[in-house]
Amino acid sequence: MAAWGERLAGVRGVLLDISGVLYDGGEDGGTPIPGSVEAVARLKLSKLKVRFCTNDSQKSRRDLVGLLQRQGFDISEGEVTSPAPATSLILKERGLRPHLLIHDGVRSEFDQIDTSNPNCVVIADAGEGFSYQNMNEAFRVLMDLEKPVLISLGKGRYYKETSGLMLDVGAYMKALEYACGIEAEVVGKPSPEYFQLALKEMGVEAHEAIMIGDDIVGDIGGAQRCGMRALQVRTGKFRPSDEQHPEVKADGYVDNLAEAVNLLLQHAIK
Amino acid sequence: MAAWGERLAGVRGVLLDISGVLYDGGEDGGTPIPGSVEAVARLKLSKLKVRFCTNDSQKSRRDLVGLLQRQGFDISEGEVTSPAPATSLILKERGLRPHLLIHDGVRSEFDQIDTSNPNCVVIADAGEGFSYQNMNEAFRVLMDLEKPVLISLGKGRYYKETSGLMLDVGAYMKALEYACGIEAEVVGKPSPEYFQLALKEMGVEAHEAIMIGDDIVGDIGGAQRCGMRALQVRTGKFRPSDEQHPEVKADGYVDNLAEAVNLLLQHAIK
Repeated sequence: MAAWGERLAGVRGVLLDISGVLYDGGEDGGTPIPGSVEAVARLKLSKLKVRFCTNDSQKSRRDLVGLLQRQGFDISEGEVTSPAPATSLILKERGLRPHLLIHDGVRSEFDQIDTSNPNCVVIADAGEGFSYQNMNEAFRVLMDLEKPVLISLGKGRYYKETSGLMLDVGAYMKALEYACGIEAEVVGKPSPEYFQLALKEMGVEAHEAIMIGDDIVGDIGGAQRCGMRALQVRTGKFRPSDEQHPEVKADGYVDNLAEAVNLLLQHAIK
Repeated sequence: MAAWGERLAGVRGVLLDISGVLYDGGEDGGTPIPGSVEAVARLKLSKLKVRFCTNDSQKSRRDLVGLLQRQGFDISEGEVTSPAPATSLILKERGLRPHLLIHDGVRSEFDQIDTSNPNCVVIADAGEGFSYQNMNEAFRVLMDLEKPVLISLGKGRYYKETSGLMLDVGAYMKALEYACGIEAEVVGKPSPEYFQLALKEMGVEAHEAIMIGDDIVGDIGGAQRCGMRALQVRTGKFRPSDEQHPEVKADGYVDNLAEAVNLLLQHAIK
């Protein structure tokens, strides 16, 4: 593999995944990954542009940022691209009235949205909200529509909490897709539109940007398909087999965000 | 389309789907479809062999037969091919110890099965049992296995109860398949092995047998792929659009089981 200097040359902007890179989630709010608080601080002192790009659809952007700030991270709402606000915008633009199958923690993002007489279903990481009854309700709304529209906030397969692996929204999206014979529209990584939104908000072109994430498919593969570079951290949901993934090869593998930031500060724009 | 005489010539055995053909299910036990009790009785008085072939994985075979008998049907346990006993056999043959994600109503079919230290997951129509917690448990068992084995009792998308459409096991099978990156083994229609089991139990060759069902894909398409003929009834989960299905064309469409039996008694073996 080429030297780091070559691989990181010309990088001007950094997109950071949050869960599994900054911190490990958990019912208690989770804990920062060692070195990540300082790594974010160093990155923000550098000439590199920084933006956070998450698929978290269980918490409102405000709650997520509050949680990270309490852990010591230098982060503000305006620096975060997250799927619920992005979806809210899409719903308004297209005049869609959603039936919401979402976690209570993210409901405030949809306060301004008309949910009467629904003409689409929005599904997010609902956690315990993925009961048989709630899934059936969403299914019936879709089956009653002449042209069913299902919007999914991400399509992650699972994530890791301190208590163990948790099924993510993608699994339930697949269940509804199969039952209705439809394909969902995904708002979140690895959707190219979503990466492009984050790049636009950061003000950096794809070829000058690098993604740092723990998800070989959603973060690394998705970013690369948009023309970005991408580093995988060996934290969060990383598994050793990711380094031999049959389809996706990261531009580099690093132990954690701290190592990624060290390399960037050394080898990106001088 | 050819005349009925031609289409039904040489039929010696009839496979009958149960839910949506004999009766419409519901929390109250459901109700017989008008004419079906008499139709089964007439069929069993004829020279035709008859066997019932269901994907019901929520009730034990004994409970299902009891429910149908109380509705007036002439049916006994030995005449029914159902996925739970078929799965139980497979588990014994292969020395598999399942983690069971199933409805309590069908648990008795697995009484003789060792479920300690599971090396596979068996998923059936668990209804309310499809909680986030139970799905997560099954998911974690699969992820802990070096070579995950998922056995699904059918892969139906949904079924109709008196209270409305209900998500079926297939939707949850897809969720686990996607989350784990695996493919399930299906015991039930439209799996060819399952139809062949029913044919063997009836003692009739595929080309001499006809399936009568309400599911255009699971019953009609599945039976035809095994070399059988198949009639779709316009009861149960039938939808008018089924008659223009892009991939499956039944050998005939009839209003209900009573009409199917009239035609069979008139045109099958003389």
